[in-house]
Amino acid sequence: MRATVIHGAGDVRVEEVPDPELRAATDAIVRVHRTCICGSDLWPYQSMEADEQGKRIGHEFLGVVEETGSEVAGVRKGDLVVAPFTFSDGECEFCRESLHTSCVHGGLWGTQDTDGAQGEAVRVPFADGTLVKLPVEPDHELMPSLLTLADVFPTGHHAAVSAGVREGDTVAVVGDGAVGLSGVLAASRLGAERVIIMGRHTDRTDLAREFGATDVVPERGDEGVEKVRELTRGQGAHAVLECVGTGPALSTALRLARPGGGVGYVGVPQDGEGVDVRELFGRNVRLAGGICPARAYIEELLPDVLSGKVQPGRVFDRTTDLSGVPDGYRSMQERKALKVLVRP
Amino acid sequence: MRATVIHGAGDVRVEEVPDPELRAATDAIVRVHRTCICGSDLWPYQSMEADEQGKRIGHEFLGVVEETGSEVAGVRKGDLVVAPFTFSDGECEFCRESLHTSCVHGGLWGTQDTDGAQGEAVRVPFADGTLVKLPVEPDHELMPSLLTLADVFPTGHHAAVSAGVREGDTVAVVGDGAVGLSGVLAASRLGAERVIIMGRHTDRTDLAREFGATDVVPERGDEGVEKVRELTRGQGAHAVLECVGTGPALSTALRLARPGGGVGYVGVPQDGEGVDVRELFGRNVRLAGGICPARAYIEELLPDVLSGKVQPGRVFDRTTDLSGVPDGYRSMQERKALKVLVRP
Repeated sequence: MRATVIHGAGDVRVEEVPDPELRAATDAIVRVHRTCICGSDLWPYQSMEADEQGKRIGHEFLGVVEETGSEVAGVRKGDLVVAPFTFSDGECEFCRESLHTSCVHGGLWGTQDTDGAQGEAVRVPFADGTLVKLPVEPDHELMPSLLTLADVFPTGHHAAVSAGVREGDTVAVVGDGAVGLSGVLAASRLGAERVIIMGRHTDRTDLAREFGATDVVPERGDEGVEKVRELTRGQGAHAVLECVGTGPALSTALRLARPGGGVGYVGVPQDGEGVDVRELFGRNVRLAGGICPARAYIEELLPDVLSGKVQPGRVFDRTTDLSGVPDGYRSMQERKALKVLVRP
Repeated sequence: MRATVIHGAGDVRVEEVPDPELRAATDAIVRVHRTCICGSDLWPYQSMEADEQGKRIGHEFLGVVEETGSEVAGVRKGDLVVAPFTFSDGECEFCRESLHTSCVHGGLWGTQDTDGAQGEAVRVPFADGTLVKLPVEPDHELMPSLLTLADVFPTGHHAAVSAGVREGDTVAVVGDGAVGLSGVLAASRLGAERVIIMGRHTDRTDLAREFGATDVVPERGDEGVEKVRELTRGQGAHAVLECVGTGPALSTALRLARPGGGVGYVGVPQDGEGVDVRELFGRNVRLAGGICPARAYIEELLPDVLSGKVQPGRVFDRTTDLSGVPDGYRSMQERKALKVLVRP
C-alpha cells in the first residue's frame, strides 16, 4: 500500500510500504478514509535529521474496519471508526481513569512498530480500547468534523477543561492554529461568555469569531498582555488556553490569567522555557494540561458533532489525496493552509 | 511598645516603636498574645541588605481586640481573634471568591504602612474582613494550634487542596519544615491513605509520623524520586505537596507526581527555576498553589482545631518572649528549632 514517510526536514514522500497485517488477536486493520496533517507534524518537518530509511508519519484517521483479530468484540468489518491519536488498551488503571495517554500498553502511531495514519491503511493495536464506532455512513458530509475527534478538537477541549473553563467565564486563547481555533470552539461550547483569541492571521481569527471568539488581539508579548488586561478590567482571563507550545507563548499565557485562574496548555512544548513560578505564586494561577487523552473525550464530543451543533471540521481549508501530502506539508509550513485534509 | 525590627541579614532587634493607633474607621487594634517566626522570615534573615532604619517583621498573630474603629461590626473589645497573614477587606470580588490574598484593598503585615506581627500590638486594617473571632479564652491550651491558623496550617492545607488530595490518595510531601509537616497533617485530614514525607531530620519526620505520615524518604533528587516510585508501584503519588520553595525541590515534586496527578506548591519561590513543562506534558501533571489565602480556610479548619482532632500547634518546639526573638531566628536558621512561638 502507499503511505507517507518523512525522511528529514522538508522531505516528506509518499511511498510503497508493506500492507498492514494482524499481529495480535486484539488488532484490527482499518482502511483509512480520511486523515490529515497536524501542526505537530510540522515539528519534525522543520527539524528532523536526514534519514534515508525514513519514518512513517500521521496520527489522525477515520476509516472502515477491514479485518479484526479473534479477540476483538467492539467493532467489526464494515464499521466506520475514528481512532484517537494514541492507542490504548481501554482496561488499565489509567484508561479507567480517563487518562488513555498514560495507558500501560498504549503508544503512538508512526513508530517502528505501528503504522502512521497518513497512508491507505493502519493496523490498530487494542482495537476495542482504541477505536470508536461512528453511527454514520462513510462519505457523510460530517466526515471532516468527525475526523477532528482524532486529535484537534479533543485537544482544544482538553485545553479548555484543563484551564477550568466554566459557564460565564472570560477565556483567552493563545495561538490561532487549528488547535487554538478548536480551543475557541470548545470554550464556547462549555459556556464561556467572552473568548479572546490572540492571533494575527485574519482568515484564522475570522473563523475564530465564527467559532465563538468575541475579541481578537493581534499583539504579542507585553503588548498583547496589556491589551487583554484592558479588555478584562485589568484582571486577566479566568481561563487561558495555550495552544502553541513555545516558551514565549506559555509565558504570555501565564501572564494573561486572572488571579485564581487557570492555564490549560496543550501545545507540544518545544523547550523547557516559559514557566517562571514566581509569576504564578502571588496570583494562585494553576497550570494544567499536557498531551490530550482524546479517547476519553470522543464519546462526550460526538453528539454535538453529529447534531451539527459544533463544526470543528471547518479548520480544514484544503483537501488533497495521498499524492498531495508533501505539498500539504509545505502549504501548512508556509501558512498557506491552516490544516490539510487527506483522502487517501 | 516593643516590636521586632529586622535590619539586615542576621540582624534582628527588638526595639521601641510607636504604639499603633486607629487610622481608618474599619481598623482595629489588637494586643498580641501569641506570635511566631515563619520559615519565610528566614529568607530576609539570610539575605536582606543592611538597613539602619530597618523593617518591621512577622505576620502571624492572635490576640485580643483592644480598640475598634467606628465601622467595625464583627469584632469588639475583648474578643480573642486570629489574623491571617494577609489582611483583606472581605468584600471585593476576590474575597468573595475565597482568594483573599488577591484582595483589591489587601496587603501584608510589616510594610511601611502596617505593623509587623512580632510585637506587642498590631493595627489591623479592615478588621471585619480580616479577623476571625475565636470562641475560647486567652491562655487556653489550644493557643498554639489556634495561632497556626494564621499561616502555617492553612498553608499546608492549601498545598494539599491545590495538589488535589482526595480520600484514599497516596501523597508525597517535599520538605520537613513546619509547612511540610502541616501539609502532612492536612493531607491526612483530607483522607489520604498513604503520606510519604521527604525529609532527613528525624525529629521532624517523627512528628510527621504522628501527623499521619506512613513513610519517610530521606533521599533527595534522583534517589528520592526513585525511592518514592518504588513505594508507589513505579507510578508516583496522586498528589505532591511542595513545601520548600527552591527550584530543586519543585523539580523533585513534579517528578514525584503520578500521571494525571497534581503538585500543590506553597513554598515562596526563591527563583524561577524548577518547572520544565516537558516533564509534565506527557503525564498530564497539574501545578497549582501559590500564596495561601489563609482567611478562606480558617473557618473550615477551626472546628477540628477546637475539638483537638488536629494539633497543628505541635510544630512549635520552643517558646520565648519578645526579647528572645533574635535568638529564635538564630535557632531556626541553624535548624535547632523547628518553629518558635513568641509570647510578647
